[in-house]
Amino acid sequence: MQFEITREYIEQLNQLIEEKNKKEVKKLMDDLHPADIAEMMEDMSMEQAKFIFLLLDGEHASDVLVEIPENERKRFLKELPADLLASKFIEFMDSDDAADVVSELEEEKKIELLNEIEDFEQAGDIVDLLEYEEESAGGIMAKELVKVNENWTVATCLKEISTQAEEVDEIYYIYVVDDAEKLLGVLSLKELITTRTNTKISNIYNPDIKMVNTDVRREEIAEIMDKYDLVAIPVVDEIGRLKGRITFDDVIDFVREEAEKDYQMISGITGDVEPGDKIWEILRARLPWLLIGLLGGILGAVVLGSYEATLSKVTELAFFIPLIMAMAGNVGVQSSAIVVQSIASGVKDFESTSRKLFKEVAIALVTAAIFASLIFIYNTVRQGDMNLTYTVSISLFIVILFASIFGTVIPLVLNRFKIDPALATGPFITTMNDIFGMMIYLLIGQVFFSIL
Amino acid sequence: MQFEITREYIEQLNQLIEEKNKKEVKKLMDDLHPADIAEMMEDMSMEQAKFIFLLLDGEHASDVLVEIPENERKRFLKELPADLLASKFIEFMDSDDAADVVSELEEEKKIELLNEIEDFEQAGDIVDLLEYEEESAGGIMAKELVKVNENWTVATCLKEISTQAEEVDEIYYIYVVDDAEKLLGVLSLKELITTRTNTKISNIYNPDIKMVNTDVRREEIAEIMDKYDLVAIPVVDEIGRLKGRITFDDVIDFVREEAEKDYQMISGITGDVEPGDKIWEILRARLPWLLIGLLGGILGAVVLGSYEATLSKVTELAFFIPLIMAMAGNVGVQSSAIVVQSIASGVKDFESTSRKLFKEVAIALVTAAIFASLIFIYNTVRQGDMNLTYTVSISLFIVILFASIFGTVIPLVLNRFKIDPALATGPFITTMNDIFGMMIYLLIGQVFFSIL
Repeated sequence: MQFEITREYIEQLNQLIEEKNKKEVKKLMDDLHPADIAEMMEDMSMEQAKFIFLLLDGEHASDVLVEIPENERKRFLKELPADLLASKFIEFMDSDDAADVVSELEEEKKIELLNEIEDFEQAGDIVDLLEYEEESAGGIMAKELVKVNENWTVATCLKEISTQAEEVDEIYYIYVVDDAEKLLGVLSLKELITTRTNTKISNIYNPDIKMVNTDVRREEIAEIMDKYDLVAIPVVDEIGRLKGRITFDDVIDFVREEAEKDYQMISGITGDVEPGDKIWEILRARLPWLLIGLLGGILGAVVLGSYEATLSKVTELAFFIPLIMAMAGNVGVQSSAIVVQSIASGVKDFESTSRKLFKEVAIALVTAAIFASLIFIYNTVRQGDMNLTYTVSISLFIVILFASIFGTVIPLVLNRFKIDPALATGPFITTMNDIFGMMIYLLIGQVFFSIL
Repeated sequence: MQFEITREYIEQLNQLIEEKNKKEVKKLMDDLHPADIAEMMEDMSMEQAKFIFLLLDGEHASDVLVEIPENERKRFLKELPADLLASKFIEFMDSDDAADVVSELEEEKKIELLNEIEDFEQAGDIVDLLEYEEESAGGIMAKELVKVNENWTVATCLKEISTQAEEVDEIYYIYVVDDAEKLLGVLSLKELITTRTNTKISNIYNPDIKMVNTDVRREEIAEIMDKYDLVAIPVVDEIGRLKGRITFDDVIDFVREEAEKDYQMISGITGDVEPGDKIWEILRARLPWLLIGLLGGILGAVVLGSYEATLSKVTELAFFIPLIMAMAGNVGVQSSAIVVQSIASGVKDFESTSRKLFKEVAIALVTAAIFASLIFIYNTVRQGDMNLTYTVSISLFIVILFASIFGTVIPLVLNRFKIDPALATGPFITTMNDIFGMMIYLLIGQVFFSIL
């Protein structure tokens, strides 16, 4: 029932491309959804991808272009001349997608393309959209939408919508405006269909509508649409005039991308990599974070080196270094992850920062007490040196406390300075906590073994 | 423009609840969106939450009930008698939400409630839905949808839809079926509005429709809806009869929850915790993973203890334990994260497992060579013991290779056995790699310092 792109299918397609069999390739492509074509093009060489792409009809091709991930699209757009882009692809796109594509071009090509667009109104819409900041409601919204005047009747509306709908892919909601274009409310298609045709719109529209201003940021829009289960949300300017709308597909992609970015940060990977990527792409994403680990490890060696006398006198002290490091790292990652996730989810909370810190300290105290006791019991049962037993338990207590606070505070501070708090998760926080943890441990060890 | 729940608002509300001022509280609540009420109820005591909830009208209350997260709803439902649930809340719900709520009740209460529902058809729908597996299309879908017969005209359709739409919150798509209820295609409201009223549906519907079978799993549904930007997808049985539909809001929540779960796994937290949660809830989510870290640390101490002679003879060997551990941990987390994320994203890849492993080994070899060289240069420059220099470089090479393969294979194996591969990320993989890394390091150290 569901069409599946199999390995055999791809082999057949590659064969046909190699034979330059335009007719058969086009026939295969015409049956495919744009998202499927875009997915296959990602795994092809530029030559192959171009061959397929230029065979498609304008509308189909423009849908494919929208589905290609931004990075690869940038490279792809370089290969296409501006006049072809304008006449064959941009023309078929919604204004938000067109603005995205245009913004990815080099300055010169951008201007050339904008002047090549025949539909002057569309070119104007694109230029308008490019004025807004990329991550704001204005930068994401599409100009295409269906709106009706509050003074019209249902019959007039239905007629008007038929005309307006030609430019809009999916209607979802009908926005109701006054004579000054101010957004008043919303009308669902359902209401329109189920109401008598001579009813006036002002009598049936729903004034209880969620909207956002053009400068609201993408995170907040995602949060509102998700919370209220909205398929689309209207965008208005400072004086409430309807400017555009944002649909759910733009927001889903964003939510997914943000979640992936945080996941990659905590696992020490930069950028979006998959096992299917090229080896050097994967390496580039992984090496920087490992370098942090290496530098941390060297710093750790220097720290331990400075305690050489202590360690050679009391070798057993070295045995519990892994334990101290593991606990410091794990506690730090947990604390930072909770903070980062709560910032990312955008959930309103009414706790002040001081109350948050107080709570984290309370949690850390309980955790520290539990694990210090457990390791105390272990070391007592195995009848180890009592000095070592005290050293390990007391330093584990302090290290857990320290790592918790550190893991909570650093992301909060980064966020305050508008730096992505996710930077403070993963290898970064682990490395910092490892080093501080060892220093605390060895200092306490020196006290108990009277080496100071 | 956007209503904000402030701390002042909540204080005012709490004040009114304390005074048992039903009239004022109800007035405040009637202006709020169900999602906002549900959010506030989460921070209230059971008594307060019940007080508010029982003031609401049936329809409003049922919407609030749907918005409460499952865990808290379960506790809340225990407080409400079955007959009240049936008459005041379930009646207003879509079949999928009603089935969710009913499935959370204890067996006895469930049967009592089902028999209390006055609308026999609705009770039947709920019982039907409960038959499906919870995570399958059948278990998620709602029975409410709008469908038309291919032989009708547009005029008949519009009339029929007015009737059917009463039960459906949002129409999104109109499904076209034949006389045997077999799903043939889809009609957008836009087409219906823009087509002449005497046209036959069979001439205008779009037969190119994505659909899923009742037993398709939630992951796959999310993937299809996301890829093709669908607001809703129809669900059919084995012989293609239309059974229900799934809307985007069910899928967004799922995508978000899955991403959060993976994030929590890698950061060593179980369950959904936020800084605003109670202290014991946060502790319960964190302690189990820290216990793994503690056990790993103790095992590490045992391993190092078994090399006591070596370590007391060559104290410098201890200096590089943190480096080996940090690199093993970071490499392992990276490898496992890439595998887990690619499994979660559900992206089709045509690489065989053996090719994946081959590539991971290639990446690991390059990484290992780079970092072994770097640490070799560092140790040579600082003119350390040459035996130590060789030991650290060679063991770092082997440890990185080992940790990469281990981090890649374990999640793949778990996934093969239908266990969540995310289990193999975070504290688990770090702890395993720490221990193996140290063993490799000390063994090689013994060779170079001829202690074996």
